[in-house]
Amino acid sequence: MPKPTLSIEFLGAAAEDYLPHLAVDCVVFGFHAGQLRILLTHWHARQRWSLPGGFVRRDESVDSAAHRVLQLRTRLDHVYLQQYHTFGGLDRRDEEIEHMLDHEDGRQAARAWINDRFVSVGYYALVDWTEVTPTPDGVLTDECRWWDLATCPPLLFDHDAMVARALATLRSQLGHSPIGLNLFSETFTLPELQRLYEAILGRPLDRRNFQKRMRELGILERVGELRGAGVRRAPYLYRFDRPRYEQALREGILLRR
Amino acid sequence: MPKPTLSIEFLGAAAEDYLPHLAVDCVVFGFHAGQLRILLTHWHARQRWSLPGGFVRRDESVDSAAHRVLQLRTRLDHVYLQQYHTFGGLDRRDEEIEHMLDHEDGRQAARAWINDRFVSVGYYALVDWTEVTPTPDGVLTDECRWWDLATCPPLLFDHDAMVARALATLRSQLGHSPIGLNLFSETFTLPELQRLYEAILGRPLDRRNFQKRMRELGILERVGELRGAGVRRAPYLYRFDRPRYEQALREGILLRR
Repeated sequence: MPKPTLSIEFLGAAAEDYLPHLAVDCVVFGFHAGQLRILLTHWHARQRWSLPGGFVRRDESVDSAAHRVLQLRTRLDHVYLQQYHTFGGLDRRDEEIEHMLDHEDGRQAARAWINDRFVSVGYYALVDWTEVTPTPDGVLTDECRWWDLATCPPLLFDHDAMVARALATLRSQLGHSPIGLNLFSETFTLPELQRLYEAILGRPLDRRNFQKRMRELGILERVGELRGAGVRRAPYLYRFDRPRYEQALREGILLRR
Repeated sequence: MPKPTLSIEFLGAAAEDYLPHLAVDCVVFGFHAGQLRILLTHWHARQRWSLPGGFVRRDESVDSAAHRVLQLRTRLDHVYLQQYHTFGGLDRRDEEIEHMLDHEDGRQAARAWINDRFVSVGYYALVDWTEVTPTPDGVLTDECRWWDLATCPPLLFDHDAMVARALATLRSQLGHSPIGLNLFSETFTLPELQRLYEAILGRPLDRRNFQKRMRELGILERVGELRGAGVRRAPYLYRFDRPRYEQALREGILLRR
């Protein structure tokens, strides 16, 4: 991939095509090997990472902008995106972007557009990470990849706060909504499901209590195979009973923490 | 109050002081005589009603803008406002506002600002309606008052959808969070609390089940007085046990519907 360049030509077009002051950012969660992960993009000029994000075209809705950005970075269509919070602080301005422009002449409008304050509408998605093809934009970012949430680097702008708030939203939903349908490819073990809950809650859970409560919810279907061979007590595999999972989504559950 | 006028001078200042394309709107819920009510403002030039709303100053955060708007329309300080959804559809443009301008000359920037598409960040508040002093802005609106939700007129723009979504948010929270602390002045009867739930859910609830479940939550404190005198079986008065109410907010409850 050629070195990404933020050209004034690109910005000139952006200032015409996109609404000023408005951005979207996506927290894309995946789950792998017991770890919650997020998809990040690498800013070439800064050697730093950020959430996948973008701007809102004058001819598209804000929701469409988020879907477009997510599709570009993941190559996935029809991902379930949830708008969770709009970040509108006064400090949401990129102080350094001026230095990234490739030359100094012309196009005040373009410079004004990118230098100004941006309000960002935050979305999160839960995806099966194996289906994602991480794809950088080639303009600002030269790399796009998964990071384990526990070990990801400090992010650009206020993106750490955006992730924290998306995680807090997930956490508050854990108590009254099922989770996992979009995160697992198909089947999973109860220890895997428990690790998902622990990763979101950020603390360990009692194994027996967790398994008892999960079974009581009635949303799991035991597939009946054992994973691996020769293991003395391999855990059972489960999948979600989709009609009952969806009923639980509608009617709510209670999972005491 | 003099006839409100949307002057081009006002808009000229607005285009300089406020971010383009960005608005805030507030769904302010109160509860009175068994009815959920919302605070609406009356647009003089159109003889129609809308939610209290406004724009975002270049020198304030989006949250501050919502608080400022709410304070102006209610005269209340420190209201708990909850951001619940950002409305970013392509159709969010006021087709008629051009006709409301008081003269035709000058200030293209001002006209462009108000004629363009606006993305609106929606907030809701639950307030004790007796503390509110409804106050119109005197520029676009000449009246501000409470309407029973069940009998309020069709609103301007997409504000009916905004109210519906705020109500759906409340409704989805009813199943796992307590409600009412900010809506009642101090004490209430269980039938009053039941009517609040029924107003939000839009359907009647079984009295005995409701009272049993409410008592089981352990968030109510019986004050021990009887309302009125000479009534044979006056209902008990309750208030919320604040520490337990707040614990229930944090930990979640389950109220089967």
